[in-house]
Amino acid sequence: MAAARDVDVPSLVASAREGSVRAVARLVSLVEDGHPALREVAATLAPHTGHAHVVGLTGPPGVGKSTTASALVTAYRARGLRVGVLAVDPTSPFSGGALLGDRIRMTEHAGDEGVFIRSMASRGHLGGLSWAAPAAVRVLDAAGYDVVLLETVGVGQGEVEVAATADTTVVLLAPGLGDGVQASKAGILEVADVLVVNQADRPGADRTARELRGAVAMREHDEGSWRPPVLRTVATSGDGVDALLDLVESHREHLGGAGLGERRRLRAAREVEALAVELLRARVGTGAGTGVLDRLADDVVHGRTDPYGAAERLLATLE
Amino acid sequence: MAAARDVDVPSLVASAREGSVRAVARLVSLVEDGHPALREVAATLAPHTGHAHVVGLTGPPGVGKSTTASALVTAYRARGLRVGVLAVDPTSPFSGGALLGDRIRMTEHAGDEGVFIRSMASRGHLGGLSWAAPAAVRVLDAAGYDVVLLETVGVGQGEVEVAATADTTVVLLAPGLGDGVQASKAGILEVADVLVVNQADRPGADRTARELRGAVAMREHDEGSWRPPVLRTVATSGDGVDALLDLVESHREHLGGAGLGERRRLRAAREVEALAVELLRARVGTGAGTGVLDRLADDVVHGRTDPYGAAERLLATLE
Repeated sequence: MAAARDVDVPSLVASAREGSVRAVARLVSLVEDGHPALREVAATLAPHTGHAHVVGLTGPPGVGKSTTASALVTAYRARGLRVGVLAVDPTSPFSGGALLGDRIRMTEHAGDEGVFIRSMASRGHLGGLSWAAPAAVRVLDAAGYDVVLLETVGVGQGEVEVAATADTTVVLLAPGLGDGVQASKAGILEVADVLVVNQADRPGADRTARELRGAVAMREHDEGSWRPPVLRTVATSGDGVDALLDLVESHREHLGGAGLGERRRLRAAREVEALAVELLRARVGTGAGTGVLDRLADDVVHGRTDPYGAAERLLATLE
Repeated sequence: MAAARDVDVPSLVASAREGSVRAVARLVSLVEDGHPALREVAATLAPHTGHAHVVGLTGPPGVGKSTTASALVTAYRARGLRVGVLAVDPTSPFSGGALLGDRIRMTEHAGDEGVFIRSMASRGHLGGLSWAAPAAVRVLDAAGYDVVLLETVGVGQGEVEVAATADTTVVLLAPGLGDGVQASKAGILEVADVLVVNQADRPGADRTARELRGAVAMREHDEGSWRPPVLRTVATSGDGVDALLDLVESHREHLGGAGLGERRRLRAAREVEALAVELLRARVGTGAGTGVLDRLADDVVHGRTDPYGAAERLLATLE
């Protein structure tokens, strides 16, 4: 607790809620770094959360997620809404790795106080989505951003994770991405609220969109349930981006208060579970070479016990 | 325990160890399905594990992981070794989704008793690698397979997971896969023991290989430590596959008993940890609508508590 004293959390949260981008950035950093003040940050934010619309953007590398995010930011700003972008994606230009063009495009928003953009490392043991991401969403939510765009690279499990974290999940694909990606279409359909074929000015876009529509049509849908629409966009020129924003809004309206509440309970449950696992890890001392887990792992390697027996003993050490 | 009575685990394990492919398949299914006999299976296998060389094959969709796996199987068989292949990859042809050519290629091994191939769903909450995969590796290990090839799709976190699970990690790339993939090169270098540029007959292979070599050279290496070699292959024709197998063997020799033991302790620790989390989940009843977690999640959604406080209360319910 002593280490938390150098951060005045109530002041920081108050500043963030008054519109200080600097305070928001500091809070996200505290969350991301696992700072000792993290607990106090979470507790102070809690009463102020639940207002932002969390929109997940996922899809394989190279489909234009960041370009789409940037175009959506422009469209939301034109409607007078404040937007936060969190990129949890090792292949994202926000992470500093990729195309100069995308970086320049995002720099457009640099002087805009109504926009907050942050790249987060996808570390932690919990798959594609950093365990810190939901906490960062909570910071932006409490700070009064109307929309939080959560960009994550989606292959396999990643899509499921972003779906558990977002109110509305937009899955981006591109024409001609190859059979590997098409093969994972089943998983994509399960999580997508809106399907986007970006780079629709390229050959094969019609076919990809048609195939996706066919796949959506073939799935069972309950009477009155949401059927993911398939939209073609060219994010680089902005074509179709306003329509995408409208579809995202339609989906939110379709969910209504009850549907949104259900998704958010699921999201909170995943977050609480993830944090419980982190606490569990901290208690059994995975870091140090002398931890209980290391001794149990050694027993498994030498066939003195099996992993299930070891796992039960690990939990027993907590009791 | 009553439900486990219809499976005679000791007989199954004995049959598997005597070379029955059918018994091996049944054991892998028990593991994958979370059958009640799972615990007995794990305990019975434990004393017989620790002999197989576990080789991870990872890389983005479309680089030819399955074709490479198939070519490696042929090469290992030519050296008289028994090989198991586990594909934990939603985009894998083994999962039934993709290219006919690959399916035919793997069918080559269908009549060979020294080869076991299985596709596994990448389900579970623990990222790209199914929690059942390490248990399936253990089945093949105990059944006397000399080599277990673990194919997983690698983007972001996936690579770290396969590295934690394999004795030797082979990362496959292909020329011209785009900037997105190149941007995640840093993560790839951290986990790769051998780097492969597959489809080396395509334009740009030289450049990709050169860039990877440059990236490896730029990294800090301790005196005498293993530097990941960069190899070009054409898995469809078999070019370079024998050399790849030699490099995998060299890496194993470099690790030696101590290095291998260290990796396996890490792998066992991850497995035990994952199982402890599964047990934790089962105890707090995430499935039912009446569970403790659901109530805590509802408190978080309504701002009555924060996720950290909820996580601590969740763990407290176990004590």
